[in-house]
Amino acid sequence: MPQGQPSVVPDDGLTTRQRRNRALVMVHTGMGKGKSTAAFGLALRAWNQGWPIGVFQFVKSAKWKVGEENALRVLGASGEGGSVDWHKMGEGWSWVQRDSQQDNEEKAREGWEQVKRDLAAETYKLYVLDEFAYPMHWGWVDVDEVVEVLRGRTGTQHVIITGRNAPEKLVEFADLVTDMSKVKHPMDAGQKGQRGIEW
Amino acid sequence: MPQGQPSVVPDDGLTTRQRRNRALVMVHTGMGKGKSTAAFGLALRAWNQGWPIGVFQFVKSAKWKVGEENALRVLGASGEGGSVDWHKMGEGWSWVQRDSQQDNEEKAREGWEQVKRDLAAETYKLYVLDEFAYPMHWGWVDVDEVVEVLRGRTGTQHVIITGRNAPEKLVEFADLVTDMSKVKHPMDAGQKGQRGIEW
Repeated sequence: MPQGQPSVVPDDGLTTRQRRNRALVMVHTGMGKGKSTAAFGLALRAWNQGWPIGVFQFVKSAKWKVGEENALRVLGASGEGGSVDWHKMGEGWSWVQRDSQQDNEEKAREGWEQVKRDLAAETYKLYVLDEFAYPMHWGWVDVDEVVEVLRGRTGTQHVIITGRNAPEKLVEFADLVTDMSKVKHPMDAGQKGQRGIEW
Repeated sequence: MPQGQPSVVPDDGLTTRQRRNRALVMVHTGMGKGKSTAAFGLALRAWNQGWPIGVFQFVKSAKWKVGEENALRVLGASGEGGSVDWHKMGEGWSWVQRDSQQDNEEKAREGWEQVKRDLAAETYKLYVLDEFAYPMHWGWVDVDEVVEVLRGRTGTQHVIITGRNAPEKLVEFADLVTDMSKVKHPMDAGQKGQRGIEW
């Protein structure tokens, strides 16, 4: 809830308007809930602006994100607002399923290569790189390269990266970083996840 | 990203299934971004489950939440998923516009009375009480009454409350509490809010 009063006015040679419309790199990290849900909530705003949106889901599950995926598909096809492309990293890839790690690493890297191609082509105005913090944290995708590619991206391309353990170099580079911390979770009281809430 | 392993199994006389489907009170608080966006992201999951959703917007602004509002209206009218009712507290009400506080207090209380009526009638399966932490924090709406009403609600009615400074009594009562803390914000670097990102 910004009050519209920046705390500093930098000497960066940009006008207020230029600075305002500068594309952002955003990171949602921490151990709490809401990292991905807030990213998809932000996608609603981008959709309402008519922006083309690319979701890159660096996780695979039968349940996770199916609500968000269906909702964004309906929105993208509604004829109002922006378009939505939903990319799922190789269907066998998952941060949970660690049994074939080499395969998972490969698919994470393939996903990142696709993101690079789309950034170079300026395919989208908003990129949701969901759970992308994990492959960086595990060293499967080189964070230095990610920062370099993001720094060099052209046009107006906003990028949101979610996931626990966002690498420090990414946090340093990002424009907006929010840490979601768990104060209390139903699982602490023995309650498992339920439909409509966890997926 | 729950792993499906609750840390305790309480002696509450409920089966795992009963406990799993128990309706939740969720709170998104803290000084960072994402409190409301995560709530609206969660609404996408509820929509996908076909649940009737009631949004109660305890804030008024020409810009805020317009993206989420349009998206949820399109989803609610799509013929797929659940229905969406979007309630705006008296058009003159806002937590920023403090010049007519008495009027604002009155409208916040009217909003809460409407929530109470809908809870009693089991109108919705998900209630998004957006920015509702503020009127409680300011004492406009009595937090003890809120907790009492939420505790006594019937059926399966999930409630999400957002806003900074969630009262301690609400946090104690809630099932799931996430604190969104600001690590870094573009405004710190002199960048004002922009369309598609802040609204």
